[in-house]
Amino acid sequence: MTRWIAVDWGTTSLRAMLMEGERTIGTRASEDGMGRLTRETFEPSLLNLIGDWLDGPTEIVCCGMVGARQGWAEAAYRTAPCTPLGGELTRVETRDNRLRVSIVPGIRQTSPHPDVMRGEETQIAGILRDDSDFDGVACLPGTHTKWVHVSAGEVVSFRTVMTGELFETVARHTVLRHSLGGDAFDDDAFLGAVSDTLSRPEALSARLFELRAADLLHGQDAAKGRGLLSGLLIGSELAATKPWWLGRDVVVTGAPGISRVYDLALRAQGLTPRLLPADDMTLAGLAAAKDLP
Amino acid sequence: MTRWIAVDWGTTSLRAMLMEGERTIGTRASEDGMGRLTRETFEPSLLNLIGDWLDGPTEIVCCGMVGARQGWAEAAYRTAPCTPLGGELTRVETRDNRLRVSIVPGIRQTSPHPDVMRGEETQIAGILRDDSDFDGVACLPGTHTKWVHVSAGEVVSFRTVMTGELFETVARHTVLRHSLGGDAFDDDAFLGAVSDTLSRPEALSARLFELRAADLLHGQDAAKGRGLLSGLLIGSELAATKPWWLGRDVVVTGAPGISRVYDLALRAQGLTPRLLPADDMTLAGLAAAKDLP
Repeated sequence: MTRWIAVDWGTTSLRAMLMEGERTIGTRASEDGMGRLTRETFEPSLLNLIGDWLDGPTEIVCCGMVGARQGWAEAAYRTAPCTPLGGELTRVETRDNRLRVSIVPGIRQTSPHPDVMRGEETQIAGILRDDSDFDGVACLPGTHTKWVHVSAGEVVSFRTVMTGELFETVARHTVLRHSLGGDAFDDDAFLGAVSDTLSRPEALSARLFELRAADLLHGQDAAKGRGLLSGLLIGSELAATKPWWLGRDVVVTGAPGISRVYDLALRAQGLTPRLLPADDMTLAGLAAAKDLP
Repeated sequence: MTRWIAVDWGTTSLRAMLMEGERTIGTRASEDGMGRLTRETFEPSLLNLIGDWLDGPTEIVCCGMVGARQGWAEAAYRTAPCTPLGGELTRVETRDNRLRVSIVPGIRQTSPHPDVMRGEETQIAGILRDDSDFDGVACLPGTHTKWVHVSAGEVVSFRTVMTGELFETVARHTVLRHSLGGDAFDDDAFLGAVSDTLSRPEALSARLFELRAADLLHGQDAAKGRGLLSGLLIGSELAATKPWWLGRDVVVTGAPGISRVYDLALRAQGLTPRLLPADDMTLAGLAAAKDLP
C-alpha cells in the first residue's frame, strides 16, 4: 500500500498525518501556521516536521490557508454552488524532489453575500464521504464558524461568523479581561444568555458591559462571566443563522470543546445535531482529494 | 479671584486646567492615565504636570477613573437615581501640602441592570449647569458610550455600551485588521450599515466577516470597510438603546470626531440632537463640584 501524507495547514498550526491508504500510521503537529511563514519558509517548515517520513517521492495533499494568496502557493477559489472538491489540485514547485505537494482549492461565494472558505471544503468532503446523501447544514465551529448548506453532494451556500475570534479578542483585549480570567465555564449562564439573545438579539451590544459592572458591584465570578460572554456571542450567531438551522438536519464538526458548546446551544433550541470530529472529517476529505482523478 | 485646578483623569489620559474662578488660564495634558499608574505614582504624575502652577495651597478637583478602586483613592459610588453630584467629595492625602485634592464620586446602578460610571456624572452636572431643566437623554460617546436618562436634575438610569472599544479591538486584533487600515471613513457606507442593523439587529454577528470577504474577492476599500464596521456597531448600539432615545430630547457630549458620527446616525433616525463638547461639560461639572457646600 502506497504511503502518502495528509496535511492540514491553517493560519496558526500545521498538522501532518502519515498515511498508508486510509490508515493513519503517524501524526505530528507544529505551530508553523501560515500566519508566521513567508513563501520561502513553507518547504523548510514541512521538511522540519516530516522530513524523516520520506523514503522516496511522496504524495502530500494539503488543505487550509496554505493555499491563500499569502500562503505557499495560491490555490484559486472555486465558486459555490459546487461540489466541495473537484477540478485539479494546485501543484506546488519544491526544491526537494521527494515532495509532491498539492493543495486543495478553497471555495468562494459572491451572492447572496461575499464569503470565502479554505479548509472547510475538505471537511465537507469528509462528511459526504461517510454520508453521501447528507442534506442539511454543517456547522463548523472554530475561530471563524462556517455554516454550510449542503445538498445533492454540493456546497449550496455558506456563511462565516467570527464568533470564536470575537470571544478571544473581547476576553483578552477589552476591559472585560479583568472579569473573565481562567478557563472555567458556567453552562447555565451560557444557556441563559443564548436564550436571551435569541429572543432579543438587539440587546447584545448593550449587555457586554454588564459583565464588567456585575463583577465590580457584586463580584460575579469569571466562570459565569465566560459563560455569559460565550452565550451572548453564540446566541447572536444563532439569531443570525436561524434560517440556516431551523428545521434542518445539522452536523457539528469542530474540536471537542467548542463542539460541545454548540451542541448544548442547538439542543436547547430543540435540535439533535450529530457531532463528527473535525480532525477525522479533514482527514477523510484529504483522502477523497488524493483520489480525485 | 482664587486660583484652582480642574483635573479630568481617565484610564488613558490626564488633563489639567488652571482656573481663575470660571475662566481657564492654562491647559496641560499627559498620557499618565490611571491605567499606567500605581497608588504611589499619582502624586508625582500630577506634580510633574502642574507643579509650577502652585504658589501655595491650591484646591484641585478631579473626576474620572482616578477615583476607582485601582486609582489614587477610591471615591465610593453613589447610587442612581440621584443628582449627578452631591454629598462630599473624597479627600486624598498628599505628601506635598500645597495639594488639596478631592475626587468626584462615580455613580452605580443596581437595577434594571448593573452599571457604573466615573467621570460622566461630572459631564451630566456640566450639562445641567447650562440647562438646569434638561429632561431627556445624554449620549456620551467614547471608548464606552453612556446613555443617561436625565430628569428633574437627576440621573434616573443609564446604560453603558462598549462600541468604541469594540471598534478599536476588532479593527486592530481580528482578521479584519487586514481590510481596515488608515483613518478614512465612508459616511454613506456608515449610514447604510446603521440603517440595516437597526432593521435587522440579529445580522450583526454574521455581517462582520463580509468586510474581509469583500476585500479578498473584490478589493473593497478600507474607508468603506471602516464605515461599515462603525455602522454595524453603532447600528447595533442604537437598536439596543432605542427605548432610550426614541422620541426624547437628546444631547450628544463627546470628542468632536465621534460626536459627528453619532449625530449623523441619530439625524438619520429623525432626531435633532444638540452637540455639547465633552471637554467643556467636564470643566463646567468640575466647577459645579468645587462649589458644592
